[in-house]
Amino acid sequence: MGIRIGIADTMFARVDMKKYAIGAIRELAPDAQIELVTVPGIKDLPVACKKLLEEKHCDIALALGMPGAEPIDSQCAHEASLGIQQAMLMSNKHILEVFVHAFEAKTDRGLLAIAKTRSYKHAQNAVWMLSKPEELAKQAGKGIRQGHPDAGEING
Amino acid sequence: MGIRIGIADTMFARVDMKKYAIGAIRELAPDAQIELVTVPGIKDLPVACKKLLEEKHCDIALALGMPGAEPIDSQCAHEASLGIQQAMLMSNKHILEVFVHAFEAKTDRGLLAIAKTRSYKHAQNAVWMLSKPEELAKQAGKGIRQGHPDAGEING
Amino acid sequence: MGIRIGIADTMFARVDMKKYAIGAIRELAPDAQIELVTVPGIKDLPVACKKLLEEKHCDIALALGMPGAEPIDSQCAHEASLGIQQAMLMSNKHILEVFVHAFEAKTDRGLLAIAKTRSYKHAQNAVWMLSKPEELAKQAGKGIRQGHPDAGEING
Amino acid sequence: MGIRIGIADTMFARVDMKKYAIGAIRELAPDAQIELVTVPGIKDLPVACKKLLEEKHCDIALALGMPGAEPIDSQCAHEASLGIQQAMLMSNKHILEVFVHAFEAKTDRGLLAIAKTRSYKHAQNAVWMLSKPEELAKQAGKGIRQGHPDAGEING
Amino acid sequence: MGIRIGIADTMFARVDMKKYAIGAIRELAPDAQIELVTVPGIKDLPVACKKLLEEKHCDIALALGMPGAEPIDSQCAHEASLGIQQAMLMSNKHILEVFVHAFEAKTDRGLLAIAKTRSYKHAQNAVWMLSKPEELAKQAGKGIRQGHPDAGEING
Repeated sequence: MGIRIGIADTMFARVDMKKYAIGAIRELAPDAQIELVTVPGIKDLPVACKKLLEEKHCDIALALGMPGAEPIDSQCAHEASLGIQQAMLMSNKHILEVFVHAFEAKTDRGLLAIAKTRSYKHAQNAVWMLSKPEELAKQAGKGIRQGHPDAGEING
Repeated sequence: MGIRIGIADTMFARVDMKKYAIGAIRELAPDAQIELVTVPGIKDLPVACKKLLEEKHCDIALALGMPGAEPIDSQCAHEASLGIQQAMLMSNKHILEVFVHAFEAKTDRGLLAIAKTRSYKHAQNAVWMLSKPEELAKQAGKGIRQGHPDAGEING
Repeated sequence: MGIRIGIADTMFARVDMKKYAIGAIRELAPDAQIELVTVPGIKDLPVACKKLLEEKHCDIALALGMPGAEPIDSQCAHEASLGIQQAMLMSNKHILEVFVHAFEAKTDRGLLAIAKTRSYKHAQNAVWMLSKPEELAKQAGKGIRQGHPDAGEING
Repeated sequence: MGIRIGIADTMFARVDMKKYAIGAIRELAPDAQIELVTVPGIKDLPVACKKLLEEKHCDIALALGMPGAEPIDSQCAHEASLGIQQAMLMSNKHILEVFVHAFEAKTDRGLLAIAKTRSYKHAQNAVWMLSKPEELAKQAGKGIRQGHPDAGEING
Repeated sequence: MGIRIGIADTMFARVDMKKYAIGAIRELAPDAQIELVTVPGIKDLPVACKKLLEEKHCDIALALGMPGAEPIDSQCAHEASLGIQQAMLMSNKHILEVFVHAFEAKTDRGLLAIAKTRSYKHAQNAVWMLSKPEELAKQAGKGIRQGHPDAGEING
């Protein structure tokens, strides 16, 4: 297939999210090349992803992170998200932000379930964006979610 | 006519907004070329639009999205909006942000109505900005809204 | 005089602010060239101003807008302001942000009065910045306001 | 000495802050060249400083401003601060932000005292950063403040 | 080893954080070259770090700071963080943000303990990122913290 997918993850996260992302890629695009890098926390992800795109020649990157439960953690996530926006615009490539916030579930088990599903589904999105964009087009406006139940389409 | 309009939409949105945007373009500028791309969510729109402007040579882009009802969704919308600002400034072309927020209506039907009208009217704005800027000039300072009733002009 | 002033305004605004800005320019710099453009809303102003500065070779631009009364409108204004900051830094030219927020007056008449005065005074500032910078220098630290009473100087 | 220091101030401020900044520079670096510019308000400072650094070849700039007491004023200060960040990064030179917020003192006299001290001390910092960086190094981690009492060092 | 690590710290901070960072580097990478610079406050750190990376040819930088306890201090930290994001993206190198917020501990002693540990651990991260990236990879998804107890991994 020849596609190159970069994955950046963090020591801060409480789930090894990349395991599920790699699983999806191996399943859906067995020939894809995967470049991995681990950084301390989510604010280190934007430049890590930009380096994967520019220096490791990846076609797309996944930014995997799990912001903590404190207000300062939400602010860090916001700053990381803005950095990811800039990194994409500077490299003209997509970075899929796969963040699982501590407030999204009440239990560790719940967080794990979201982290698994979201990592898998966004890795699938990454493969589709590179090699089957029609898969995304088919689901346009369908209220699709990753890690929570789909919201569904409002029929017009 | 020769104008090229890019449209980026999302799987996250609950209405197929591009249907109404395309309808307006076909009606007002039948010769316009339209480039389409679908991405997972609103934070993927800024670079998608920038790529439409720079790599697909569109003259303008529409960023269609429907942010969800949670605070985190509003933050995502804010981040996407800032990304769209940057994308415009880096490409020196306009991107019309057509976002319909979940809080703008109490019912699915209400949201649908806003999504339809706003998509149609901003597609009309896109056509006008490229080929009939005098149509916008005529409405300067008139309190024009897209998807809600016009606020109207305060006569001086 | 040879100065070129760009003015970008919006259909969203409820007052034809540019009328007052143009009045000031005609009065203070009768030979100035004025470039006009109208966009849908305030978030379209930053790139519109940047295009006036870079593609229409204006020496300065005025960004005229009237953000609405809802929280989302204030957020839009914030995003537009950040875009204007970037546009200035990318072009190394000034853009005077002339925003009149709906919360600044209780009545339409009050809003109109602010819009008139602020548009007039910032157009005056634009002329001064280009051709009489000493007029601004004379008023440094004097607590000058545009559209509200001056706060005045604290004498040291 | 040959150092060039740019100072941008505003008509909005209620104290002629540059008087105190210039005093410090004349005292500490009598041979320094000073470039002055006055703009309407704090949001005009980032590009004004960038122009001092890039077009007037200053080695450093001081951005002097006094944000008002309303929430919108704090938002403007935030936008200006972000612009100053960008201006520094784009020019690879320092801009010392010398803002005195209306909420920092209860009386005009109190504000004046802060404005004086802060302007003086940051002008001193500017001189030191260019010609005596060891003066800053000596005070690293000492809890130094400008305009309020020093917080002091926590001894380890 | 030949690695070059830049360290920027502030006069505002109340702990000499760089002492602990340098200790870690000397211990883990005795041959590393260290470039130091001190600036007044945290908002001066982004460009200081960018200059260390670009003008002093450092491979990575540490931004050491201690934001104060007031709301305006948190806003300054947010602005500095966004500046650090940009500085990284513009230079394609990592800057580890080592901020200790006044709200993180109730006593000076508590703040000191966090400042020590966080400075040490992030200096260790910097060394690892440059010369032993596998050390970070091994800890991916383990809920690692710097200055607070580790959150731990959620086993999947």
